[in-house]
Amino acid sequence: MKDYNKESLQMHEEKRGKLEIHSKVPVNTQEDLSRAYTPGVAEPVRRIAEDPEEAYRYTIKGNSVAVVTDGSAVLGLGNVGPEAALPVMEGKAVLFREFAGIDAYPICLDTQDTDEIVETVRRIAPGFGGINLEDISAPRCFEIEARLQDLGIPVFHDDQHGTAIVLLAGLINAAKVVKKDISDLRVVISGAGAAGVAVAKLLTCHDDESGVCEAVRDVVVVDSTGIISSERGDLSDVKRDLASYTNSRGMTGGLQEALREADVFVGVSVPGILSKDMVRSMADNPVIFALANPDPEILPDDAYDAGAAVVATGRSDFSNQVNNVLAFPGIFRGALDMRAPRITGTMKVKAAYALAELVPTPTAEKILPSVIDTSVVPAIATAVRENGEI
Amino acid sequence: MKDYNKESLQMHEEKRGKLEIHSKVPVNTQEDLSRAYTPGVAEPVRRIAEDPEEAYRYTIKGNSVAVVTDGSAVLGLGNVGPEAALPVMEGKAVLFREFAGIDAYPICLDTQDTDEIVETVRRIAPGFGGINLEDISAPRCFEIEARLQDLGIPVFHDDQHGTAIVLLAGLINAAKVVKKDISDLRVVISGAGAAGVAVAKLLTCHDDESGVCEAVRDVVVVDSTGIISSERGDLSDVKRDLASYTNSRGMTGGLQEALREADVFVGVSVPGILSKDMVRSMADNPVIFALANPDPEILPDDAYDAGAAVVATGRSDFSNQVNNVLAFPGIFRGALDMRAPRITGTMKVKAAYALAELVPTPTAEKILPSVIDTSVVPAIATAVRENGEI
Repeated sequence: MKDYNKESLQMHEEKRGKLEIHSKVPVNTQEDLSRAYTPGVAEPVRRIAEDPEEAYRYTIKGNSVAVVTDGSAVLGLGNVGPEAALPVMEGKAVLFREFAGIDAYPICLDTQDTDEIVETVRRIAPGFGGINLEDISAPRCFEIEARLQDLGIPVFHDDQHGTAIVLLAGLINAAKVVKKDISDLRVVISGAGAAGVAVAKLLTCHDDESGVCEAVRDVVVVDSTGIISSERGDLSDVKRDLASYTNSRGMTGGLQEALREADVFVGVSVPGILSKDMVRSMADNPVIFALANPDPEILPDDAYDAGAAVVATGRSDFSNQVNNVLAFPGIFRGALDMRAPRITGTMKVKAAYALAELVPTPTAEKILPSVIDTSVVPAIATAVRENGEI
Repeated sequence: MKDYNKESLQMHEEKRGKLEIHSKVPVNTQEDLSRAYTPGVAEPVRRIAEDPEEAYRYTIKGNSVAVVTDGSAVLGLGNVGPEAALPVMEGKAVLFREFAGIDAYPICLDTQDTDEIVETVRRIAPGFGGINLEDISAPRCFEIEARLQDLGIPVFHDDQHGTAIVLLAGLINAAKVVKKDISDLRVVISGAGAAGVAVAKLLTCHDDESGVCEAVRDVVVVDSTGIISSERGDLSDVKRDLASYTNSRGMTGGLQEALREADVFVGVSVPGILSKDMVRSMADNPVIFALANPDPEILPDDAYDAGAAVVATGRSDFSNQVNNVLAFPGIFRGALDMRAPRITGTMKVKAAYALAELVPTPTAEKILPSVIDTSVVPAIATAVRENGEI
């Protein structure tokens, strides 16, 4: 893989960051000023004071997203703090702008306390049309997102659902490649962090309110201690919940035990954890999603050597890149367009199917569209709009 | 005065607000993505994680200002709430961009509690190089600003100091026009809100740490109850403080009493409060700053009729417009450039003198530069940089 670190560092220094705020109106003359600022601006103020919903008509609110982080789980680098998270949040805002025409602004919080994060997001919400939570570590991310669902604007933790949506799209197409029915698959998820939990929920249709979702009936989640089952006494609330809708066969043991005769491995865990022997122990034509980044759970060559039929990673230098950028811009575009109060389970499922359909004839080398395919955002936005509730 | 309301409303609706976020880097190819986002972005993240100060080198922090309001004192419209404040905050951000090349973003808070506002500003601060507090009502604005001075980045309540700086600049030049020495002036300030208190402080050199300031020795402040003096039993903490460094002659009574033989009227209060008879009761060649907006304390024609030598208002359709936009862009430009941890009293005084000097030969019709004079920001920024502490 090419080393982009030096080039990237140099670019960040030269540009002093990646975002710039522009004015959509001129202020070259006294008259311009009177329209953009005082005294003319008093009129939109009065209208919105009468009805705060009018902010969607006269301000940036309806197209604005706050990219909120506490810097606790940034890339694979961990708890780097709010300042160090800023380059990633700026990058996210760049993607929102360039892929979906959304004005996103980074908000890096100087607190890692769940209550304080929830409280702060509520307080800054009036000027935004949506909140993208980013790089907040598990398990706090689950509670923070859940408690903010009543805010009246979409609040979406991308590390959870962005990954889950793209993974489901990839799985839909991988199942076609290996000619298996998605509901019959045995899926093993390695990792029970933000992404692992969201993938388990989405695959099992745990949050699908309207029944559009075709559930994978056999999902087993493995954390660093082993298979998550209700027998274990060491489970957090989130993992106990996970145990209630996964591992229906009551398996015990570790990753090795879980993978025997499994059809699909989903790694959202640590580099190198998947051995060739484990792949060999899986069912015929195993599908491997090795998403640890930048170093996957197994390298594609090793996985193919051991008999894998389809291999996907998070990396751009292998085929089948699972990248959140395939999901979040379109999800927010659709949600902002319809002024959805939240992102529902149904929207997520439909977004995944829309994404999968952009590859009409999937092959082992191509189960997902390219991250720079411009047809992705409109397709997902449409799916979201058509399946949202207001 | 031309009615800009309709035009402004239409413009706000057509544009759906006045700000747009742009990317300074391309993301057209997979390689672009690898530099702007993962994996390349990990390198600036690592550098900043080692030393948070490096955020000034690799991110938008050093050129970013949050325009923070609680919507409690917006224009002359009062407590309109955070959503309705948004068009004004966007306008402010437009001015930051167009006049000073600063990236400012509006943060409209869903709280009007002093502790919560202070706390929230602290929490969102890591991504910003400065905080512009805006349209927060007195007396909360004083405490909020004071408590945030230890944040490490400039925190500046523009309604206080922006007005005070431009007023002082205007007064310096008006004193030249009427050939009086600024320190000998008797100044009466009508209004003890955010602007009135800040004007009193700046004119009396109350916050000047380095002694560069030439104090006006005789300043009297009048609120809706009358002259502020330590004799009054009804004073808030802020006004009691005010009484300790103003009204040295121990005057009592109302505006009428205060104005007798005064040289200067500074109105930051309510429309129409200054009568022609009051102007006639002032010393020879009185100077009138009637800054209530959009309807001043006295109309210029009436003031001149009653013998005023110089009249200034907040309006663009009369000569001598006192407008904050003459101060805040340059103040922040200078402070960000030098990475000042706060805006000192000395910086404010020097900024006022720099602004005054841009009109080398002041006349009754021109005591201040035009709001669209492009020499203003560099002149103020230089004065701030040369007089700041790091």
